[in-house]
Amino acid sequence: MHIPSSYKKTDVTDIKDFLIQNSFGILINQVNGKPWATHIPLELDVDKDSNDVLVGHISKVNPQADNFIESNEVLCIFNGPHSYISSSWYEKEDAPTWNYIAVHIYGKLHILSEDEIMESFHKLVNKYEKNSKNPISTADMSEKTLKEIKGVVGFKILIEDI
Amino acid sequence: MHIPSSYKKTDVTDIKDFLIQNSFGILINQVNGKPWATHIPLELDVDKDSNDVLVGHISKVNPQADNFIESNEVLCIFNGPHSYISSSWYEKEDAPTWNYIAVHIYGKLHILSEDEIMESFHKLVNKYEKNSKNPISTADMSEKTLKEIKGVVGFKILIEDI
Repeated sequence: MHIPSSYKKTDVTDIKDFLIQNSFGILINQVNGKPWATHIPLELDVDKDSNDVLVGHISKVNPQADNFIESNEVLCIFNGPHSYISSSWYEKEDAPTWNYIAVHIYGKLHILSEDEIMESFHKLVNKYEKNSKNPISTADMSEKTLKEIKGVVGFKILIEDI
Repeated sequence: MHIPSSYKKTDVTDIKDFLIQNSFGILINQVNGKPWATHIPLELDVDKDSNDVLVGHISKVNPQADNFIESNEVLCIFNGPHSYISSSWYEKEDAPTWNYIAVHIYGKLHILSEDEIMESFHKLVNKYEKNSKNPISTADMSEKTLKEIKGVVGFKILIEDI
């Protein structure tokens, strides 16, 4: 993304707020020399060493998972609202444009242990169940359901560049 | 993107319809060995040789433009609606999930001439001005405004894989 200086957000609090509210992102790495992208929740968190991280998981059968190499750089994209802007609304003649909010993050990927994935599931579900009529919790789930964790690869991305 | 077979859309008419209605996409190629992404309208069209193409343009000062190599493969991502799906809505216990619509297209990039870019501007503006109260048209724009074309690189992407 190329950001003309007048459109650049530099307030990290604003950016973090946006990430928390628009966590359904896109994870991009390389699979067989081609960029590969998957749409998943990527949750902003702070790890044990106080690093800002994005935490997520994907299915083990997603070919992207085979290319999760420890410490490899990945790109995460977060989309916000966007709209065509007609230049008929301008005072002076000019070309129309498209307004949008997006955050791109580069970082290094680290695979999580099963315990760490389970912890991230608790947080993820609690966050999104807050508005449910009958909120579920991973704490109440049967062993059988929790075994679905065996089907995913969990990871954290150490944020390097926003 | 990994698509479990039960979620795979194969009807090309449906996919094209989605692309026309959700044309504000993300163009991804490599810049200095890293994936680089730009949010832009990518308009589905048919070129003179009857190929299905995506047509777009980016600013010449976007570093991505320096890496537009004729016939290089790029990835285009189109996002539709998405939402957290609470498993409290299920009849049986299961993990919650996230529903979304997305189309990923791989294709080969070809740089457009200035005449071709201008033609794409006409189409683009006409499409999005349809709902304007006072629709503008590139046909009515001054030479000065149309000179902004000098600041962009226009391209078409020959669709190879959806």
